[in-house]
Amino acid sequence: MTIPREVDTPDILIDLDILERNITRMAAAVREKGLALRPHAKTHKIAEIAARQMAAGAAGLTVATIGEAEVFAAAGVDDLFIAYPLWSSPQKAERLRRLAATVKIAVGVDSAAGASMLGNGLGSAAANVSVLVEIDSGHHRSGVSPEAASVVAAAASRAGLHVAGVFTFPGHSYAPGMPASAAAQEQQALRQAAESLAAAGFEAVRRSGGSTPTALLTDGSAATEVRPGVYVFGDAQQLELGRCAVEDIALTVAATVVSHHVTAPGTPARFIIDAGSKILGSDRPAWASGFGRLMDHPTARITALSEHHATVEWQDSGALPGLGDRLRVIPNHVCLAINLVDDVAVIRRGALVDRWAVAARGKNK
Amino acid sequence: MTIPREVDTPDILIDLDILERNITRMAAAVREKGLALRPHAKTHKIAEIAARQMAAGAAGLTVATIGEAEVFAAAGVDDLFIAYPLWSSPQKAERLRRLAATVKIAVGVDSAAGASMLGNGLGSAAANVSVLVEIDSGHHRSGVSPEAASVVAAAASRAGLHVAGVFTFPGHSYAPGMPASAAAQEQQALRQAAESLAAAGFEAVRRSGGSTPTALLTDGSAATEVRPGVYVFGDAQQLELGRCAVEDIALTVAATVVSHHVTAPGTPARFIIDAGSKILGSDRPAWASGFGRLMDHPTARITALSEHHATVEWQDSGALPGLGDRLRVIPNHVCLAINLVDDVAVIRRGALVDRWAVAARGKNK
Repeated sequence: MTIPREVDTPDILIDLDILERNITRMAAAVREKGLALRPHAKTHKIAEIAARQMAAGAAGLTVATIGEAEVFAAAGVDDLFIAYPLWSSPQKAERLRRLAATVKIAVGVDSAAGASMLGNGLGSAAANVSVLVEIDSGHHRSGVSPEAASVVAAAASRAGLHVAGVFTFPGHSYAPGMPASAAAQEQQALRQAAESLAAAGFEAVRRSGGSTPTALLTDGSAATEVRPGVYVFGDAQQLELGRCAVEDIALTVAATVVSHHVTAPGTPARFIIDAGSKILGSDRPAWASGFGRLMDHPTARITALSEHHATVEWQDSGALPGLGDRLRVIPNHVCLAINLVDDVAVIRRGALVDRWAVAARGKNK
Repeated sequence: MTIPREVDTPDILIDLDILERNITRMAAAVREKGLALRPHAKTHKIAEIAARQMAAGAAGLTVATIGEAEVFAAAGVDDLFIAYPLWSSPQKAERLRRLAATVKIAVGVDSAAGASMLGNGLGSAAANVSVLVEIDSGHHRSGVSPEAASVVAAAASRAGLHVAGVFTFPGHSYAPGMPASAAAQEQQALRQAAESLAAAGFEAVRRSGGSTPTALLTDGSAATEVRPGVYVFGDAQQLELGRCAVEDIALTVAATVVSHHVTAPGTPARFIIDAGSKILGSDRPAWASGFGRLMDHPTARITALSEHHATVEWQDSGALPGLGDRLRVIPNHVCLAINLVDDVAVIRRGALVDRWAVAARGKNK
């Protein structure tokens, strides 16, 4: 793709054909497994993408914060799951009460204290809020052990909340060789947690798992829904994990070569582009080849990142890009990149066809 | 500091007394050396802070992008230096022309081609734009070697631009044990570059250096101005480099403990707070102790970061913070954190006294 002339750099480009294909394909694959799809909207934060996901048959959306839920509720999505163990401050309780009055809302909980705080804070609105107990399936971040799910469910029920089920995030799937085993652990944890709930008299109607690396490895026997997010765009992490192909990458950052660095003879050429950590994000897992990839130059490596500079090491046999040349960068972690811009350039077959607002950008609360 | 009740988490807090002390102290120290101070505003992006820096005697502001320059020009700052080797696209040239009509503007250049592109793009407005040639003083990012400065200056002059001097960013000072040697290299590079310009008939009236780690190590013999940015807030990087003290930290992220992780006996306790990479930023140099520090718990370590979770490992002998407790986090790199929020909570002696807009947030172009 040639970057349209009207687009100045740095800027985020969305390839609309690829985006729509990614949305359709995941929807079909998940439907095929008999699962509900509840895409994680923190990846895109864009109303126009949410609408396409819903039109493709999503059961609702997943979000990470109340602020994201407010944005997507205002955009017309009527079934939202805040997949986070919220500590319900007075401000959060008030905002949840308002949300629950207009849309179907579910919230994560992973402690008896958190469940009580949530239910008590909501007061009479608690009955309109469902909770899913968060389970640790091996990522060791938030979530209780599957066996402890019933304790949290009981506290939630005592606080007047509706216990709808359990959920987990297999974040340990984000490493080479891990997706299959993480998906297996995820399924086992959901099954055990549902049993824990059943033993205490709760039915885990919703058993929610999934992530872009594991969503399509889920066999459908334990989970009832999956929550992949990154699949709409793809990114350099998914590419290097083998969970998407270059032709699936729908989001790139347009950048210009602004400086050539003179290097010692025998060492790779180096140049600087005007996309840094303030548009790419600076996530860099230990196994990643660098701070993102160049779309059309697979052997180039982004070896350093400042706020407005990326250093590219050129190992290609082809001609070195010249000063002023424009390139496309695949960010390592697309959820961070989208959160750094107010809007994105929407491209169809090389032409700029629209700009979409990143409506939920910065909604951390 | 207790986090004021009106502040929900996560949010960015600015301690106004500390901020004002940092501004006054740097202004006095730089004046004492006979240097001009041109603070880098990419760190804060806030008009109210720029006004305080100008009131304390700053010669003008440094910015990284035209968008930042536009915001601070609109806020009344009339002398701006874009310390970046801009590649002047038609859009950028048009915006620079408009800026140059209202404020004093200088731009970085580090290639003859970039200088020609800039001067030719500006046309008759070129005479109103000064350039400073960027020099590589050891960071090996953008910038030419000091000896090559005259080549770039000559191209700029031919393109109708006013050559005002040279500048460098000693980014290699951001590592343990490096500030003193990086400052020495910086001074030498500025001196050599000024000589290169003089030999070609250009006077380097402005010789601009500095960064928070090196600004106060500059002896004043080679540079005429310094451009520190982070000093207004401090951050965990500066703290761990020994370039600021805990009592100099003016910006923290208010966070709530949302989850306790059950760990194996004999291993440190772990808990999760609701500030992740979407408010702290995910920069983590190899020498850093983690992804930021806890303000009141110096032995705690932030060992992992997701978008809305930080994992804290508790090595303190004191009591483990409880669910719902509120803590303050010092981000590793404060310039990234500020760029992730629309506004900040301004605190004076524990009370919320104002909210300031991050007016130049996201101005990447």
